[in-house]
Amino acid sequence: MAMPKTGSSNIVIRLEMDKEAATFGLIATAIGKAGGDIVAIDVSGNGRTSTVRDLTINIVDAASKDVIVRMLDHLPGVTVLQVSDQTFLMHLGGKIEVTPKMTIKTRDDLSRVYTPGVANICMAIHDNPNSAHKLTIKRNTVAVVSDGSAVLGLGNIGPLAAMPVMEGKAMLFKQLAGVDAFPICLDTQDTEEIIATIKRIAPAFGGINLEDISSPRCFEIEQRLIEELDIPVFHDDQHGTAVVLLAGLYNAVKLVGKQLSDCKIVLCGIGAAGIACTKILQAAGVTRIVGVDREGALVRGNSYAHEAWRWYAEHTNPEMESGALSDVIEGADIFIGVSGPGVLKRTDIERMAADPIVFAMANPTPEILPEEAEGLVRVMATGRSDYPNQINNVLCFPGLFRGVLDCRASHVTEAMKLAAAQAIADVVSEDELGEHYIIPGVFNPHVAERVKEAVIQAAYASGVARRRVRSTTS
Amino acid sequence: MAMPKTGSSNIVIRLEMDKEAATFGLIATAIGKAGGDIVAIDVSGNGRTSTVRDLTINIVDAASKDVIVRMLDHLPGVTVLQVSDQTFLMHLGGKIEVTPKMTIKTRDDLSRVYTPGVANICMAIHDNPNSAHKLTIKRNTVAVVSDGSAVLGLGNIGPLAAMPVMEGKAMLFKQLAGVDAFPICLDTQDTEEIIATIKRIAPAFGGINLEDISSPRCFEIEQRLIEELDIPVFHDDQHGTAVVLLAGLYNAVKLVGKQLSDCKIVLCGIGAAGIACTKILQAAGVTRIVGVDREGALVRGNSYAHEAWRWYAEHTNPEMESGALSDVIEGADIFIGVSGPGVLKRTDIERMAADPIVFAMANPTPEILPEEAEGLVRVMATGRSDYPNQINNVLCFPGLFRGVLDCRASHVTEAMKLAAAQAIADVVSEDELGEHYIIPGVFNPHVAERVKEAVIQAAYASGVARRRVRSTTS
Repeated sequence: MAMPKTGSSNIVIRLEMDKEAATFGLIATAIGKAGGDIVAIDVSGNGRTSTVRDLTINIVDAASKDVIVRMLDHLPGVTVLQVSDQTFLMHLGGKIEVTPKMTIKTRDDLSRVYTPGVANICMAIHDNPNSAHKLTIKRNTVAVVSDGSAVLGLGNIGPLAAMPVMEGKAMLFKQLAGVDAFPICLDTQDTEEIIATIKRIAPAFGGINLEDISSPRCFEIEQRLIEELDIPVFHDDQHGTAVVLLAGLYNAVKLVGKQLSDCKIVLCGIGAAGIACTKILQAAGVTRIVGVDREGALVRGNSYAHEAWRWYAEHTNPEMESGALSDVIEGADIFIGVSGPGVLKRTDIERMAADPIVFAMANPTPEILPEEAEGLVRVMATGRSDYPNQINNVLCFPGLFRGVLDCRASHVTEAMKLAAAQAIADVVSEDELGEHYIIPGVFNPHVAERVKEAVIQAAYASGVARRRVRSTTS
Repeated sequence: MAMPKTGSSNIVIRLEMDKEAATFGLIATAIGKAGGDIVAIDVSGNGRTSTVRDLTINIVDAASKDVIVRMLDHLPGVTVLQVSDQTFLMHLGGKIEVTPKMTIKTRDDLSRVYTPGVANICMAIHDNPNSAHKLTIKRNTVAVVSDGSAVLGLGNIGPLAAMPVMEGKAMLFKQLAGVDAFPICLDTQDTEEIIATIKRIAPAFGGINLEDISSPRCFEIEQRLIEELDIPVFHDDQHGTAVVLLAGLYNAVKLVGKQLSDCKIVLCGIGAAGIACTKILQAAGVTRIVGVDREGALVRGNSYAHEAWRWYAEHTNPEMESGALSDVIEGADIFIGVSGPGVLKRTDIERMAADPIVFAMANPTPEILPEEAEGLVRVMATGRSDYPNQINNVLCFPGLFRGVLDCRASHVTEAMKLAAAQAIADVVSEDELGEHYIIPGVFNPHVAERVKEAVIQAAYASGVARRRVRSTTS
């Protein structure tokens, strides 16, 4: 599919034109006036009194779309049936396909890839189940599994509506790391049913990427699957976010000349991502972490409804600081937000230690916008692509799964996540490092390769790799 | 991957060669003497005292492989580590991959196929779930589901070992009909668990192809899924076989100048395929069907352990013929075998009516070999590719699923199966029709297209199509 020039995009408007009343000249004029440029016309239906045409129109400004539609709707004999923009068109029929690695050209080929020759391969696997990792797609294939309960910022939109996200993720897996990923969207949100279903479909897959499953179910689902399957299971919303956050922090503290383990960190939003970020920070040696949620700082000894919050209060906040965010932010070196829009105020940043580092990762609207924090923060990162320093899971999951598949890891250990974070951070060289460049961009061609190498080394060190890596061939 | 010349194939032998004791000249000479031709050499490892090399060797005769290995193993300082033939090599890493339909080149692209733009698509599906058929891979994707309980002629080899067959099927789906098919091999053989699992993973798929699930569980699994899902479910071992059988019979009776509905048919092997073949024959107007299994002809009034056999005895054999195959074969126009090797004797064929038609479809060894039946049968078909008239499901499933996906059929009706059979038969023109050509070959380029068209027309007639077919665009 041809890609539009950046800054402009195509829309397709399906029009019904009355053969008597409508004139194409008026239509073309209206579109031109509204800032559109007709680049193609297709007749999609032809009746006795009317025709249906698809006009592909290039627009530079997204707002032109509405203007064009409004003007066309006012022309005599013209009815706008449907308007499709570039995003819509890119999704028609889905974004991924399943393709054979070779063409079956002859009967000989057919007898090898299918009956009767395939029977030898089946029996080889039957005799030695481990060879499935070598002789089937299991070697290179990951299931991207969601129940549609916590999709992007959209919430519980269900499995059908979650599909486009999982397909997009599968595209990124393949393009960035050569991993075959297939979307599995589950028509259940019951914890036990999800666990049972994933276990039953596991034979085809070399790894499971859990995605957009709401908290707290995501904790049990992931933990149980890690224990009960012999392939790696990784909930990206938790650990992918944590890895990329840590990568950004490694470079941010380097820039301001602090030791991460010395820093006081205030983390706002104690959900799945917040807890995973906390755990990886602890694994990286940070001890002074204060977690804040709607009720304020989580403090040991208080009683909490969620089990996860009880764990959190037990294992963080060694100085037992209490109060609101605006209280505990006092003297913090780093603020991490995985909560909601506008939670952090300029007055909060003013109370932080010197060279404040703010990672405001709420999507789509961060805890504080970079323009609001300007002049106060030293290093600022968000989850957004339209500001510098985007904390984006895309930097982690392709290379991480490439690594675990290549060394046939049974699990993703904490050491492998730390190694991935360090590898991402190290892609930014000393020379390049700056306030607006603490983390590589999503299209940086080195990231997946470096993450893969680091993950494989850590997997061998952790004792979870199950495949001898050969010097020149596999 | 390059394909070998028909008749010859490549094997790869991995050798460890002692640097002192082994000489490559002796190795090359031995391979040449044994009928092999070295076409490539790769060093796959190098130690202090030995090297490991992969020799790619072209052989014309499959028996050469063993001779070469034996001769090499006797050479001083040479150890054969591994031998891979062409079939094995074609399976390395699996036979299919999941590929993006477009490359993500710019941030703009990324923001359309993934966050934030993808959110619009998700919400469009959330607002109108039917649009998942348009905006996700559901439009073109089929799950090929097996529990590994009845794989080819290999029996209950389990889900991992079944994968190569399902991958091969996915290749054929794509190559022959552009259908994206993904293998799902289930780590359970419990009927209720299979049903529940398939229902839960259904959102991504536009159809379910059940495969190699043993009888009688396959009946309930298929029936329940047909009732409980809104996408077509088709157990290929039953209905694919039945459709292609019927296609062959349409042309066989045409050739001998009989009416199918007048024929007496003896069918041997009352399992899943046999029952499906019987049902489609009944739908095609045949009434005189006698089913034979291990206990002889199934007759109304007898008591049978299997529910399927009770049904069979009730609904076939109107003249209540009883006895062994050799008894009821008397006067039969057609013999259909879906049982085991050697079940049909020459003396049985001698007792059939004039112009006997024998479809001996047991795999890999038919009920009677064509050379044994020679001189007695008028038309002979088998399941094998090395004899004329191969009854191969590949003629049905790609075009059938192409059709149901294109018209978004909710079910596969009996009329659609009959239409598919007629379409396959009609690919063989009157001029071409002959004893050795009653069914098109698996590579015939017209089959899938004709089956698709026939299935779509029948789906509209059956009232199960849910998509308006447009004249020029979709």
